[in-house]
Amino acid sequence: MDIGIFEAYESNVRRYGRSFPTVFTKSLGATIWDESGKPYIDFIVGSGALNYGHNNQDIMAPAIQYLADQNIVLSLDMYTTAKRDFIEVFVNSILKPRGLSYKIQFPGPTGTNANEAALALARKYTGRSSVMAFTNSYHGMSLGSLAVSGSASTRQLGGVARHDVIRVPYENYPNQTFDSASYIDHVLGDPGSGIEKPAAIILEPIQAEGGMNTASAPWLAEIQRICRKHDVVFIVDDIQAGSGRTGDFFSFEFAKIEPDIVCLSKSLSGSGNPLSIVLIRPDMDIWKPGEHSGTFRGNNLAFVTSAAMCSMWSDKQFTTAVERTAVKLQEHLDRLVAKFPKCIEQKRGRGLMAGLKCRSQAVVGRVHDVAFENGLLIESSGPNRDVIKVLPPITISDDELDHGIAILDQALQEKTNGD
Amino acid sequence: MDIGIFEAYESNVRRYGRSFPTVFTKSLGATIWDESGKPYIDFIVGSGALNYGHNNQDIMAPAIQYLADQNIVLSLDMYTTAKRDFIEVFVNSILKPRGLSYKIQFPGPTGTNANEAALALARKYTGRSSVMAFTNSYHGMSLGSLAVSGSASTRQLGGVARHDVIRVPYENYPNQTFDSASYIDHVLGDPGSGIEKPAAIILEPIQAEGGMNTASAPWLAEIQRICRKHDVVFIVDDIQAGSGRTGDFFSFEFAKIEPDIVCLSKSLSGSGNPLSIVLIRPDMDIWKPGEHSGTFRGNNLAFVTSAAMCSMWSDKQFTTAVERTAVKLQEHLDRLVAKFPKCIEQKRGRGLMAGLKCRSQAVVGRVHDVAFENGLLIESSGPNRDVIKVLPPITISDDELDHGIAILDQALQEKTNGD
Amino acid sequence: MDIGIFEAYESNVRRYGRSFPTVFTKSLGATIWDESGKPYIDFIVGSGALNYGHNNQDIMAPAIQYLADQNIVLSLDMYTTAKRDFIEVFVNSILKPRGLSYKIQFPGPTGTNANEAALALARKYTGRSSVMAFTNSYHGMSLGSLAVSGSASTRQLGGVARHDVIRVPYENYPNQTFDSASYIDHVLGDPGSGIEKPAAIILEPIQAEGGMNTASAPWLAEIQRICRKHDVVFIVDDIQAGSGRTGDFFSFEFAKIEPDIVCLSKSLSGSGNPLSIVLIRPDMDIWKPGEHSGTFRGNNLAFVTSAAMCSMWSDKQFTTAVERTAVKLQEHLDRLVAKFPKCIEQKRGRGLMAGLKCRSQAVVGRVHDVAFENGLLIESSGPNRDVIKVLPPITISDDELDHGIAILDQALQEKTNGD
Amino acid sequence: MDIGIFEAYESNVRRYGRSFPTVFTKSLGATIWDESGKPYIDFIVGSGALNYGHNNQDIMAPAIQYLADQNIVLSLDMYTTAKRDFIEVFVNSILKPRGLSYKIQFPGPTGTNANEAALALARKYTGRSSVMAFTNSYHGMSLGSLAVSGSASTRQLGGVARHDVIRVPYENYPNQTFDSASYIDHVLGDPGSGIEKPAAIILEPIQAEGGMNTASAPWLAEIQRICRKHDVVFIVDDIQAGSGRTGDFFSFEFAKIEPDIVCLSKSLSGSGNPLSIVLIRPDMDIWKPGEHSGTFRGNNLAFVTSAAMCSMWSDKQFTTAVERTAVKLQEHLDRLVAKFPKCIEQKRGRGLMAGLKCRSQAVVGRVHDVAFENGLLIESSGPNRDVIKVLPPITISDDELDHGIAILDQALQEKTNGD
Repeated sequence: MDIGIFEAYESNVRRYGRSFPTVFTKSLGATIWDESGKPYIDFIVGSGALNYGHNNQDIMAPAIQYLADQNIVLSLDMYTTAKRDFIEVFVNSILKPRGLSYKIQFPGPTGTNANEAALALARKYTGRSSVMAFTNSYHGMSLGSLAVSGSASTRQLGGVARHDVIRVPYENYPNQTFDSASYIDHVLGDPGSGIEKPAAIILEPIQAEGGMNTASAPWLAEIQRICRKHDVVFIVDDIQAGSGRTGDFFSFEFAKIEPDIVCLSKSLSGSGNPLSIVLIRPDMDIWKPGEHSGTFRGNNLAFVTSAAMCSMWSDKQFTTAVERTAVKLQEHLDRLVAKFPKCIEQKRGRGLMAGLKCRSQAVVGRVHDVAFENGLLIESSGPNRDVIKVLPPITISDDELDHGIAILDQALQEKTNGD
Repeated sequence: MDIGIFEAYESNVRRYGRSFPTVFTKSLGATIWDESGKPYIDFIVGSGALNYGHNNQDIMAPAIQYLADQNIVLSLDMYTTAKRDFIEVFVNSILKPRGLSYKIQFPGPTGTNANEAALALARKYTGRSSVMAFTNSYHGMSLGSLAVSGSASTRQLGGVARHDVIRVPYENYPNQTFDSASYIDHVLGDPGSGIEKPAAIILEPIQAEGGMNTASAPWLAEIQRICRKHDVVFIVDDIQAGSGRTGDFFSFEFAKIEPDIVCLSKSLSGSGNPLSIVLIRPDMDIWKPGEHSGTFRGNNLAFVTSAAMCSMWSDKQFTTAVERTAVKLQEHLDRLVAKFPKCIEQKRGRGLMAGLKCRSQAVVGRVHDVAFENGLLIESSGPNRDVIKVLPPITISDDELDHGIAILDQALQEKTNGD
Repeated sequence: MDIGIFEAYESNVRRYGRSFPTVFTKSLGATIWDESGKPYIDFIVGSGALNYGHNNQDIMAPAIQYLADQNIVLSLDMYTTAKRDFIEVFVNSILKPRGLSYKIQFPGPTGTNANEAALALARKYTGRSSVMAFTNSYHGMSLGSLAVSGSASTRQLGGVARHDVIRVPYENYPNQTFDSASYIDHVLGDPGSGIEKPAAIILEPIQAEGGMNTASAPWLAEIQRICRKHDVVFIVDDIQAGSGRTGDFFSFEFAKIEPDIVCLSKSLSGSGNPLSIVLIRPDMDIWKPGEHSGTFRGNNLAFVTSAAMCSMWSDKQFTTAVERTAVKLQEHLDRLVAKFPKCIEQKRGRGLMAGLKCRSQAVVGRVHDVAFENGLLIESSGPNRDVIKVLPPITISDDELDHGIAILDQALQEKTNGD
Repeated sequence: MDIGIFEAYESNVRRYGRSFPTVFTKSLGATIWDESGKPYIDFIVGSGALNYGHNNQDIMAPAIQYLADQNIVLSLDMYTTAKRDFIEVFVNSILKPRGLSYKIQFPGPTGTNANEAALALARKYTGRSSVMAFTNSYHGMSLGSLAVSGSASTRQLGGVARHDVIRVPYENYPNQTFDSASYIDHVLGDPGSGIEKPAAIILEPIQAEGGMNTASAPWLAEIQRICRKHDVVFIVDDIQAGSGRTGDFFSFEFAKIEPDIVCLSKSLSGSGNPLSIVLIRPDMDIWKPGEHSGTFRGNNLAFVTSAAMCSMWSDKQFTTAVERTAVKLQEHLDRLVAKFPKCIEQKRGRGLMAGLKCRSQAVVGRVHDVAFENGLLIESSGPNRDVIKVLPPITISDDELDHGIAILDQALQEKTNGD
């Protein structure tokens, strides 16, 4: 396989290509193939952007038909039939059954577009400029999102990314004795705290890049209460944890909260095609026409595939299957934790958004390499990159899941034996 | 036609839908149709993101085949056959024939992703934090790009967007007596100027949103010389003016310059699918693996359509046709300027990136409405929104172009008579 | 007494004149007189700038002689005999007996000049830009010092004062269960904490304006250890608590620490004449000549009075008397706390830097007014201004101290009776 | 003479002591003496802080009496008789005769305290955060003042000093063909200029540190007109050029303007004792009590000497003498310019605020050294430090002036011969 052209012409910034030095071509469900025809089970799924598997035919068939019929592809924010269909399905299949009432903004196709729009709206709404964000958060690669992210390597990008951000500890950070919610409540009420009232608090209910850290339902509810009390906008970045990843459509449903603003992207299109939206509490939708824009905010192909994906959530059979798969995955991981105590410190995450906190980055590196050799794609996260992310498609077949876990088991075994 | 669902559920931020209160469906070449079957000539083409027309079959046919064959759609920055094909075509059809030698970064799918990556790289490369940007510039909607943009309404978004930016006058701003290049050269060399040496100078060779202001070849060459002299990175944002819009592939070819970094997006995919790249002078490609990332930087459908588009530029017949159409468009506009002196102040732009500076925003508003009524889509730009952008597909047929111009002519006529 | 001219011509920003609506003239020791000849015991002493009493003759006599002899008054940072004498006395009477070895910078005459110079030097030394500062801190009124101060009203001044500051909780903030030192240690070592390594940690060993909060010796030692461990400059702002206020010359002597940089001002001149210095660990003195400057950094009259003051600290009789007075003051306050539990919550502070935390701002306001009526000047501090500062001259006579406390006792009594 | 103690204990930041390696003691009028008894004519006068000469007896005698009588020295912003006297004299001798009506703020003793207070007030008054400042400006050493200063070495201090500042060209910068006032007017009115409306424009009518650049009366009037038109606060930093330096009390009197805010310091006390004030247009005095503060804002000794100085301006004989001396100085400098064309490029400044722009920094360095040897103290300014500042006391005797100029003439002669 020829990877020389990447080495010659693609920027040194490329990363996955170095981890997986082969050239991929076809893909279906949880499996992708390289040029030589070798299959790989995919537990990365585009960093959570392919929750419904590769080339899911229920999603892709309408897309192919849409293009074949010469329908409009790019439309800025003009009205199109594809966009109207998407809005209808999203409202009827996702929002209404959950008792949610939001206005929908199309801020551009990426997650960071959504977060930047949400932060800008919160600043405009409150007239304040700073934002409260958490340790180990990750919100994106453009400057506004970088600023609120926690990772040192991310934030140092370009050297200018830390204005107007108040960093506070996430639940159980740095350890379980510190009550971060109560600390936040206190400093917001103390005129001597040195911490100005922010426009917004932004958080991920599960911090994927930060190491698969999960927030509890009571803590999330408490943060929402604090936001209401101090008149601060509550933004949930559900870009990686939402769109079905935890087993529910939104990752925060279990906490029975209703954030002021919710950002979705990644798996939102269902197809891997770039799409993001910002859900806005209606009275907070104070945007003026055109005040926020972006060329690719009218990606109609993504509207078509997203509508197909959203309609699945009205199908009881579909949701039951996802729940069953989540249980199965958790059982698999419990078994691995019990089996490899020398490698694995603890299970992390929730539902199908799972991780294994390992005892060192070296363990993870070795497991990654052996798994790739044997036909499984995994990646790591966390400030010390010692957490294995386990993100299969939520529609993965039992066979594919068992096979992927078996390869992981074997890689851990080799690592354990190798020590 | 039912637009109630947009009014009920889409954020107030929507703009084009208000300007064009109808629902679009099909599209082909320079024409799009609404639900009632009424056709419109499109002189907006996705704000320059559909230079090759809607559903250009040379571009879309391979895309449909790609999806039908269940090839990989989203790949982060793994190596794929679609990406390899794109790189090969881009290097061979675009870079090499122009004597250019760049590394290619895939920063994510939008123009602002590209600009943010370019600015971050320049800051990293120089160790400096500020950036020099121009009056009336527009570089995107995420915070880093907002900061360097010139429009007050854009920059005030969220209230935090002006750090580390040094604003300097574009060529001929505010009038022709001020030599902005010489001023920039002077302040960069004067330790008392109060202006620190920036990481980069970023500019658009034609400022589309800023009012279709064009930079001359000598001025662009002078800015490049100043960057070289003071060791400042020279970034060209060719997102709207590049990818063929001016008649050349890059908008700066006529100036015989070779910027350190070039950002492309919008029409780069050829299909309206989101794609952007950053072209980097090889010795400046000091990114570490994974230092900049983004979920949708591996949009393979866009790689397929972009490769199809790029290969057209190796076809002499294609480039000759584009040149001929550019001349035809300019002749049309010269005629309109001569015919409507009370409405039009001057012609702006270059090649197929053209505009008409009108005598007031009111003129533009009226022309816009009449044109829409008669089946032509146009939009305005400039700080006072008094410039009509004229951006037909560069592949527009003579009939479509003549028809579109005729509608414009008539709208100007009505306006003139109506006064 | 005519105060009309102040009302007519002095800015509305004036505060003390409104609290004490009379016109003062003469002053000696702990007593000042107004125009009508009414004496007041002074427990404010220029917010701690007159620790040695008003017109202390040991200090003022050399000053009068200096002026009478037509010696140089202002000298920028030229060498003068007065400055040489000051340095000699400061080194021999203050630094050497305490085993300290610092270089001395004269940054200008005010405390905020010193803090700004210290922060600038720490940034230059480390190449980092942010600074860690504490809840309820106060460091001065110029922008760099404002930024690191904790009070909301202070920091909001002008709306631009919060860049590059990391706010962390002071000892026992918000309550005694949170281990702030351990939290600081953790975030500085965690690459995902979202908190960049700062240039410096700046703190007051006693937060006067913040409410007379005192840091313990172990906590101060731990902060110093953390600074050493993470290579962060440790700055002690001893502007109000130093120069003898706690009974020792430096307020941190009891903790046996040796900060990298110490800032002194307020009582440093001994006379109320503006003077400040920055004490710098010799290897950290990387200033280039003239890199920091200021017109009034050569205030020779203040050098003369400061030398006279410093030499007192070589006098055992003087230091013994100060210690005895401190004990006496503490006994007085303990008695008041026990006597007025309905007004006073707790005693605060250390040595002669004392305060009474009251149960409400209203209590303090009433006590202030009654005390003024009866001939005692006090002021309040704290985020809710419910702490009475008790700052007599450290050289106060027993009679004056007893008299001042008696007035305070009576004012508390009236308040208690009045409820 | 022993300067070892300075080398051992004073920070490396010391500068003048290195330029003039001797130890000064006595001073009177325009002359200061070192320990060996050698006299020097002083053309630096504390960088303009001793306009009335050293130990001016009309000014110092009341000061000595004040101290001898045990009057209050430091009073925060309590009302004192000394302060009342100062206000009365300032209003009657300075403001009223010039038809000016200002409120007076005492922001602390230094010039930078005044500028920071002025900027904070302008930000509070307008609700805007940025400030427009000029090339080659100098406004002080604390962070807010640093930010608006133009010198690279000044602004880079500590690495954080450039937020919220819009840099624009001073009159005739970089050359006489550019109309800076018209440029400023244009960008403030153009929504696409990329330059937000600032809270204030701050300027020095003569830029002393920037190279003795003078603004013309029409340009100053035009800047005031632009401020009025765009509702921007007009701040004149008259710290070095005011308090009599140009021959008038305020340096801007010749332009018949009335700035919204004026900052004074340096020679304001008349004695070299630290004092500064901010003059505020009465309707703009929206400070809340205590919103801006500072320990040393009640420096009564400086009030006493300043009142003595201000009262001189009611004496026609005094003002006539100053005017005559200014003319004499200008004649001297014209003669030097004509005599040493190889060394001197042009005369700079106005009145007694004069400078000689030399052909190189080397010339200035050599002249400085020879002059010191021969008994004259001068210093340089300008971004390339090639301007000799000539700032004798405005009360200098003819003999002293002639003698100082003679030494300067001789030093230039030696330089010329030496080439």
